[in-house]
Amino acid sequence: MTLAEKILRGEVRAAARLMRDIDDGMPTAVEELKALFPHTGRAYIIGVTGPPGAGKSTLTDKLIEAYRRKGKTVAVVAIDPTSPFSGGAILGDRIRMNRHATDEGVFIRSLGTRGHLGGLSRSTNDIVSVFDAMGWDVVIVETVGVGQDEVEIVRTAHTSLVVMVPGLGDDIQAIKAGILEIGDVFVVNKADRPDVERAVRDLEVMIEMNHPPEGEWWPPVVKTVAQKQEGIEELVAKIEAHREHLGSGEALARFEENKSALRFEELLKEQLFRQVHRRISHGDRLTRIVEAIARRELDPYTAVEAILKDGD
Amino acid sequence: MTLAEKILRGEVRAAARLMRDIDDGMPTAVEELKALFPHTGRAYIIGVTGPPGAGKSTLTDKLIEAYRRKGKTVAVVAIDPTSPFSGGAILGDRIRMNRHATDEGVFIRSLGTRGHLGGLSRSTNDIVSVFDAMGWDVVIVETVGVGQDEVEIVRTAHTSLVVMVPGLGDDIQAIKAGILEIGDVFVVNKADRPDVERAVRDLEVMIEMNHPPEGEWWPPVVKTVAQKQEGIEELVAKIEAHREHLGSGEALARFEENKSALRFEELLKEQLFRQVHRRISHGDRLTRIVEAIARRELDPYTAVEAILKDGD
Repeated sequence: MTLAEKILRGEVRAAARLMRDIDDGMPTAVEELKALFPHTGRAYIIGVTGPPGAGKSTLTDKLIEAYRRKGKTVAVVAIDPTSPFSGGAILGDRIRMNRHATDEGVFIRSLGTRGHLGGLSRSTNDIVSVFDAMGWDVVIVETVGVGQDEVEIVRTAHTSLVVMVPGLGDDIQAIKAGILEIGDVFVVNKADRPDVERAVRDLEVMIEMNHPPEGEWWPPVVKTVAQKQEGIEELVAKIEAHREHLGSGEALARFEENKSALRFEELLKEQLFRQVHRRISHGDRLTRIVEAIARRELDPYTAVEAILKDGD
Repeated sequence: MTLAEKILRGEVRAAARLMRDIDDGMPTAVEELKALFPHTGRAYIIGVTGPPGAGKSTLTDKLIEAYRRKGKTVAVVAIDPTSPFSGGAILGDRIRMNRHATDEGVFIRSLGTRGHLGGLSRSTNDIVSVFDAMGWDVVIVETVGVGQDEVEIVRTAHTSLVVMVPGLGDDIQAIKAGILEIGDVFVVNKADRPDVERAVRDLEVMIEMNHPPEGEWWPPVVKTVAQKQEGIEELVAKIEAHREHLGSGEALARFEENKSALRFEELLKEQLFRQVHRRISHGDRLTRIVEAIARRELDPYTAVEAILKDGD
């Protein structure tokens, strides 16, 4: 039986194995993913992003519990930057996994950013697809940082949560501007801190200025204190409201097409590069190009033009 | 006279014009960049990254002043997420620009992340090259967030500063692990806050665990209170120490080659995709592919394989 067949039967070990193969860039993984693809599209995907220190992990934890109480199975893809000496998932994440270790309705998978450079978003999509095909009800994708890559990753979720905290000061303005477009629901976590009302008002003003067109989704702002379990039910209600909004035929179809376009383009970009890179890595052509650029004898624009002409 | 010729003569307006052309993706910009490239390699490039709220802008401001006092000219490329309603640079940045508006030895350029998706790092390199060819002594590249893209951007700087603040709690562990590899100098800013010693110790322990090999650069940790001008001289001294370390022949050559490889690959990736994208956007082929993927009738892996075979 293929890995894909086992995964479609719900075998967790087969899923874990395929995820390792995806991580390692094994060519066989692509064949399995092809077989799984027609079975995707059933899971509800929730993205969680925001600056470090906002309490995203704790919030994700509470969301897991809330969906488990509703009888839903929950898978989490946690994107961790890993470093050569930490050897994979970070400590906090391991603790988290242990907490849910006895619950068969929860599956937490860490995805290191090492080795995924430029392909992190693709890897995340692949892992989400495995969970989706396997029949998990809810898949939560949680990022660590908040940068362009993270925004790209969260863009493929049905509902994107942007988590903030009070008191980050004016610096947060910049972040807010950048992620306003991707937030379907804004969360002001650690809402027992001072300045919470200011943080909420700031967000509301920015949403107002962005004035979503008539009939479009108006992103709500929810206050939570994840560690004390406060505001979680309201947050889930807002997520469900967004889901209902998206669920109405036309909007969902548009969402799926946007997501398909992103995913296709990403994969195309990666594979095109890999193909050409293999060709020019043969012999010392690539080395010679790079050395010439470093010595300023050749500019990178002309070098790339030559490669592109070559391929015709 | 071409823009490049004017830029080489130091004409600021020509530089601003070319930067706009780069932003707009004008094909003529590439020809100008080709002409400028042989004149690059003289500027010293400093990267500044770290989580939002760490005070990176204020720190950059103080670095500008410090280098100006040394008689150096300073250009800044500030990477801002822009939003449809802010229309470009964010407010804080505009204020900053005004502060230095009367100083001809300072040039601040904002680079919005909109429209640069996937090519932000390339655009940044292009802008830095313009400043470099023009003869600016120091070019500071400042990111807003801290994510994978930001790490990629800062990787092309000679000296990368990673700015932290005390009291971000355990969540910061994750970030620290991810950016440890790119930090040449670590800064604990807002060092008048509680818990500063813990933040410094945490960083030092992580650097220790990473034990740079004999003879390699050992990243120092510097405490600053940028707003009060504290620790800035020491920070500049550490930057200069790293510069001296890098300046020793072999190390600098290796750095230039790594950077050239990154830049070449990035440009190749982008141009390859653009070429193929143009080909398949012709007619409705791309639309049909995306719709089929959205309906799960076609998987993205098979779709990409078909396009790649096509190109042979």
